[in-house]
Amino acid sequence: MNGRHLVLASCVIAASIAALRAQTPPTGAEAIVGSPSFLAASDFLARDYDRFVRELITLTEIPAPPFKETARAASFLQMLRASGLVDVETDAEGNVMGVRRGANRAMLAVLAHLDTVFPEGTDVHVKRDGTKLRAPGVGDDTRGLALMLTMIRAMEAAHVQTPNDILFVGNVGEEGEGDLRGAKYLLLKGKYKDRITSFISIDGGDQGNITNGALGSKRYRVTFKGPGGHSYGAFGIVNPAFAMGEAIAKFSGLTVPANPKTTFNVGVVQGGTSVNSIPTEVSMDVDMRSESPDALKKLVADFQAVVREAVAHENAARSTKEGKIEADVKLIGDRPSGETPVHSPLVQSATAVVKTFGLTPRYGISSTDSNIPISLGLPAITIGRGPSERSHSLDEWTDVEKTSAVKAAQVALAIILAAAQ
Amino acid sequence: MNGRHLVLASCVIAASIAALRAQTPPTGAEAIVGSPSFLAASDFLARDYDRFVRELITLTEIPAPPFKETARAASFLQMLRASGLVDVETDAEGNVMGVRRGANRAMLAVLAHLDTVFPEGTDVHVKRDGTKLRAPGVGDDTRGLALMLTMIRAMEAAHVQTPNDILFVGNVGEEGEGDLRGAKYLLLKGKYKDRITSFISIDGGDQGNITNGALGSKRYRVTFKGPGGHSYGAFGIVNPAFAMGEAIAKFSGLTVPANPKTTFNVGVVQGGTSVNSIPTEVSMDVDMRSESPDALKKLVADFQAVVREAVAHENAARSTKEGKIEADVKLIGDRPSGETPVHSPLVQSATAVVKTFGLTPRYGISSTDSNIPISLGLPAITIGRGPSERSHSLDEWTDVEKTSAVKAAQVALAIILAAAQ
Repeated sequence: MNGRHLVLASCVIAASIAALRAQTPPTGAEAIVGSPSFLAASDFLARDYDRFVRELITLTEIPAPPFKETARAASFLQMLRASGLVDVETDAEGNVMGVRRGANRAMLAVLAHLDTVFPEGTDVHVKRDGTKLRAPGVGDDTRGLALMLTMIRAMEAAHVQTPNDILFVGNVGEEGEGDLRGAKYLLLKGKYKDRITSFISIDGGDQGNITNGALGSKRYRVTFKGPGGHSYGAFGIVNPAFAMGEAIAKFSGLTVPANPKTTFNVGVVQGGTSVNSIPTEVSMDVDMRSESPDALKKLVADFQAVVREAVAHENAARSTKEGKIEADVKLIGDRPSGETPVHSPLVQSATAVVKTFGLTPRYGISSTDSNIPISLGLPAITIGRGPSERSHSLDEWTDVEKTSAVKAAQVALAIILAAAQ
Repeated sequence: MNGRHLVLASCVIAASIAALRAQTPPTGAEAIVGSPSFLAASDFLARDYDRFVRELITLTEIPAPPFKETARAASFLQMLRASGLVDVETDAEGNVMGVRRGANRAMLAVLAHLDTVFPEGTDVHVKRDGTKLRAPGVGDDTRGLALMLTMIRAMEAAHVQTPNDILFVGNVGEEGEGDLRGAKYLLLKGKYKDRITSFISIDGGDQGNITNGALGSKRYRVTFKGPGGHSYGAFGIVNPAFAMGEAIAKFSGLTVPANPKTTFNVGVVQGGTSVNSIPTEVSMDVDMRSESPDALKKLVADFQAVVREAVAHENAARSTKEGKIEADVKLIGDRPSGETPVHSPLVQSATAVVKTFGLTPRYGISSTDSNIPISLGLPAITIGRGPSERSHSLDEWTDVEKTSAVKAAQVALAIILAAAQ
């Protein structure tokens, strides 16, 4: 998910209304946090800190590009098994999961995603820099995986009992073209699809953040096609790279509202066969998001107009005697928007926990695996894994300073226990 | 090389002057073409036509991307050996070659290039369409290779004797980033570097064309680098894909002279890791050529200005708090210009042969393996392999109608025999 968290005026207002409604915290957060078993689990988290850091490094250094999570999944499966879960297995989509039994049949799903955005060949060696660990993917979302493992061990060590079953999942396909395939499979096809009643994704930043809004996004691959030819002999005919350049230049000049936050990106470009050939096709992958469905719709329309104009411009600027430039605009990602209301029991119980730890709850909206349950009407939130910055860049880092890292784990554990009531 | 051939006013004038100087053809073209051994060789070429077409198809269907010519080279080596050459071998660069002995130690090198512009995975299956064969690379320059084989067999069958040795070479690295590495190795490092006195590349179109000018080109890979980040979380920072798009859009709008012919191309674009990441780097491969060194110099300067402006534009348009966009402009190809004068014995002997066959000689300028010997002061020309069109595109074709194909082979053989005097 994104490295930033947004405080939305509308959510803050909603939170205030909800706070009025919820004069009596409905979740027993204080009771949970004050219980002997939670205190024992908290102590364990502090003792388990070194192992948490070790596993975070181990997992980070196993590459997990989109659609290539297998190696990391295999290691994570062993770690889940060692943590004491039952029914540990890999589903048909590649998600690795195991169950911690409660008293009831209702099930809370807790996810952290296995995949990173980084392609094969990326140097994923972890570099230490004081209390910071630096490596691609170390925060997003490998820290979520390592946090999940230490929490499970803490629950085991402290013999924590929960009313509901908890399904812990290291899932595939959260990033990019994965298009939430792991979460989709889990909730639409997997063996627990009819048992999961609530959903927590560990894929955010600081522990005060409660992401209850699903940020809608549209992703396209635009392929510009033309006749191609010799760079010298056929010079003067239309060139799809020129059309794409024109489209990118126009696209980059679009204005979007800062509020509701609306964004666009050209993330991948590729195409052409050799420096001395006019390409027959080139493509670009485009990501557009907005907190507002209307703003997103307008942005998508502007983007499509830009592509049409660029194609027309190139076909007018050069010869089409061998053929015209055409653009194939293919939808490659479509994440629904929506929200789990602030006054819902899941958000309220997380809010109460956060307050119990003396933190200020901040509601937000993002694009994570929670988009899928939210679109299905299931209560879902995304919670913090601890501080990390520069997600999706090669200089990504996460801070594992011990006191704050242990506290982050305690808060996350308490949120999960409160949600499993 | 390019599929078009240029008639240059200056060359035509030079040719007229040369024609005055050469009232008596210096090459004995008519004597060669009228000799019994040439007539026997000509008859053989007609009888060998089916094998020529069969080998053209066989070779075309062995992929030979730049730097990956090995498989085709291995087959071609067997074919050279079967044709009756001696000292058939592969040199350290990957060129496949063999010698046909003459009486003297002076050596004519005759080349056709093994490589195509097409990457691995391209469908190179040959489709027949009347007398046309359609496949990527079938003309440029696989027909040159097949033509070389049938000519060698014809010389053997007719017991043709030449004064000089002839070195036949299926060379690597003519296309794109190969940057003429095969010809460079042959002339600068290979075992025959001090023996080669003249040079013919079979890499042109129709048989009247005599390419005696070396077209200068400059090729660059421009890598746009930036901090990168999450497409949503880090939105607002500079994006190297946007800078590149702006550069391509401006570059495509440059005006270049039609005469002297001057061209530019963006042939390959690549970069970025995922749709939802702002790239840390993207790159484009650019090819620029001109018949005029001055026009090329101006175009290169304009191109470099465009890159600088696009980088500055992006750094001004978005936040540079995480870092700026920078462009690394790397020279990846530099083909020298120059010419073998029309009045030189090599061009004059080829001219006389072409006229003997009733064709009109047309001098031209192009970018081929001949650029290297020309830059070294060695006489060199590029001659036709027979008609083909749409070079460097997926719908490339060559016409193998029997009468014209046999005549094309006869003309090429006579040019070679005249040059080996």
